[in-house]
Amino acid sequence: MAVYTEVSDDDLTAFVAGYDIGAPRSCKGIAEGVENSNFLLTTETGSFILTLYEKRVNTDDLPFFLGLLAHLADKDVPCPTPLANATNEILGRLSDRPAAIVSFLDGMWPRRPTPEHCAELGRAIAHMHLAGADFEMSRANNLSVGQWRGLLDQSRDRSDEVKPGLAAFLDEELSALEADWPAAGGLPSGVIHGDLFPDNVFFQDGKLSGLIDFYFACNDFFVYDLAICLNAWCFEPDGSFNITKARRMLTAYNKVRDFSTDELAALPLMARGVSMRFLLTRLYDWLNTPKDALVTPKNPLEYYEKLRFHQGVDGPGAYGLEATP
Amino acid sequence: MAVYTEVSDDDLTAFVAGYDIGAPRSCKGIAEGVENSNFLLTTETGSFILTLYEKRVNTDDLPFFLGLLAHLADKDVPCPTPLANATNEILGRLSDRPAAIVSFLDGMWPRRPTPEHCAELGRAIAHMHLAGADFEMSRANNLSVGQWRGLLDQSRDRSDEVKPGLAAFLDEELSALEADWPAAGGLPSGVIHGDLFPDNVFFQDGKLSGLIDFYFACNDFFVYDLAICLNAWCFEPDGSFNITKARRMLTAYNKVRDFSTDELAALPLMARGVSMRFLLTRLYDWLNTPKDALVTPKNPLEYYEKLRFHQGVDGPGAYGLEATP
Repeated sequence: MAVYTEVSDDDLTAFVAGYDIGAPRSCKGIAEGVENSNFLLTTETGSFILTLYEKRVNTDDLPFFLGLLAHLADKDVPCPTPLANATNEILGRLSDRPAAIVSFLDGMWPRRPTPEHCAELGRAIAHMHLAGADFEMSRANNLSVGQWRGLLDQSRDRSDEVKPGLAAFLDEELSALEADWPAAGGLPSGVIHGDLFPDNVFFQDGKLSGLIDFYFACNDFFVYDLAICLNAWCFEPDGSFNITKARRMLTAYNKVRDFSTDELAALPLMARGVSMRFLLTRLYDWLNTPKDALVTPKNPLEYYEKLRFHQGVDGPGAYGLEATP
Repeated sequence: MAVYTEVSDDDLTAFVAGYDIGAPRSCKGIAEGVENSNFLLTTETGSFILTLYEKRVNTDDLPFFLGLLAHLADKDVPCPTPLANATNEILGRLSDRPAAIVSFLDGMWPRRPTPEHCAELGRAIAHMHLAGADFEMSRANNLSVGQWRGLLDQSRDRSDEVKPGLAAFLDEELSALEADWPAAGGLPSGVIHGDLFPDNVFFQDGKLSGLIDFYFACNDFFVYDLAICLNAWCFEPDGSFNITKARRMLTAYNKVRDFSTDELAALPLMARGVSMRFLLTRLYDWLNTPKDALVTPKNPLEYYEKLRFHQGVDGPGAYGLEATP
């Protein structure tokens, strides 16, 4: 939730004039995305999202993110489409920041995901994974196994403040993950979203209508994306795992893109890995956010509990799938 | 800038079903207003603003605020129009808070007000003052002369931290204001907006298209409203007073609603008074906002400088008007 940068009406009018979308009618800062300044822009021709990229996004990555959106939208993935301006560029500059205008997507994100939402999501992820296959750019995952030790090093000394024994637990689990993690290309790979939490997925009349916030997109194992969704969509508020939601998500995915046997076998390990990834970034934020800040950091222990669940899983059956699909 | 309350998609759908505006298509928290949670709601039939009233607004005042909007909108003042639901109520309840849906207004607020903006504003204020004449409810101004000493008492001990000598200055000026301030009804009075800063006034293609944020509206002297606007619209960023903007605002107002001679003569005193009002509320916020809060409090000394300017004014000529209009 944030609007960091103020945009003047004069600057906005000049910026929008570079696009073939008519004059601006209104522009309101919206509480969507925490990394950038986002505005709901309405013009004579419709509604759009205007994004100003703040310092937490690496400018060098913007051509990848925006190019990916254009590529996926062209293949009917329901994601924001970047608009090209009169000089055919999709990345401009406004209020001294890189800026882009993308299409507006109808829908709302589900506060209480149902098994039907999970099935819709599974189908959409599979379509997205297939649609990204011929995207010619690539971006490394900078929050995967190679970065976790560095992240842990920044929090280890204070992590027992959050839970006694947490440092030792994380060290042991991380060593196991580093030992067992597949090498690059060791599993079917391609462009993944990397952050498909419910607030990044819109639904309209029960149908998935939008995937947004691709600013963690990168190239990695497809099952890494699915493991993120298992964690973000299939646990109930009381911490229990809902195997029905997982089954619906994974079987719907599988109908569009077949799992390999290796992918299925790797699912518990992937789920442990992505639990580690979110546990570590949340732990860092938890320890480094001022106590009276308006933004409350997310509790890292939610992901400790999820990690503990996946450690107890002995095969894809725990996620509602047979070992051989 | 704030969205305080989360609204679930299910709750929203049920709430919107009570209105004749079609099903919701999207609902995004917007950074508009600091007192309440505001959402830009789009439905099958158009765009609306959904407001959830947070604790800083007194629930007992809501019928006045919403009734006033309905009254003014009915008289073509370009303000948000509250929508009535199926049981003909304009105040409902959502996410455990009082909530209302109002019409969406096109336009953007001017970051650099011009003399033309000021003339448009003057006309609109006069229309609003006239339109409010037959509104049957009333609400006392709880930030006028009778409340200023209580406000100062909360900041006096620490006000010299902001500027040496500020406490003594405020005590002396406040005594003078209390001595000279007109009694209730001593000047032409009616419903005023009470907070017409540029971010509460929208323009579209150079024309005023909206007045918003009526949550300081109350009954008081009409010139109190004008004095707020002189301060908020006619000083340049370097602190100088732009007499051209003031003249354009006041003469445009006067063409729609005639000033009395008493009102004109009272303008410098009113301007000192509203400077005191904003100086005191900003001083309180300045001294009581945590240093690392995300919201930066506004500098109270901006209003100290404005107050000093008005102390040096000996008649309405300083605002571009003759003593007898």
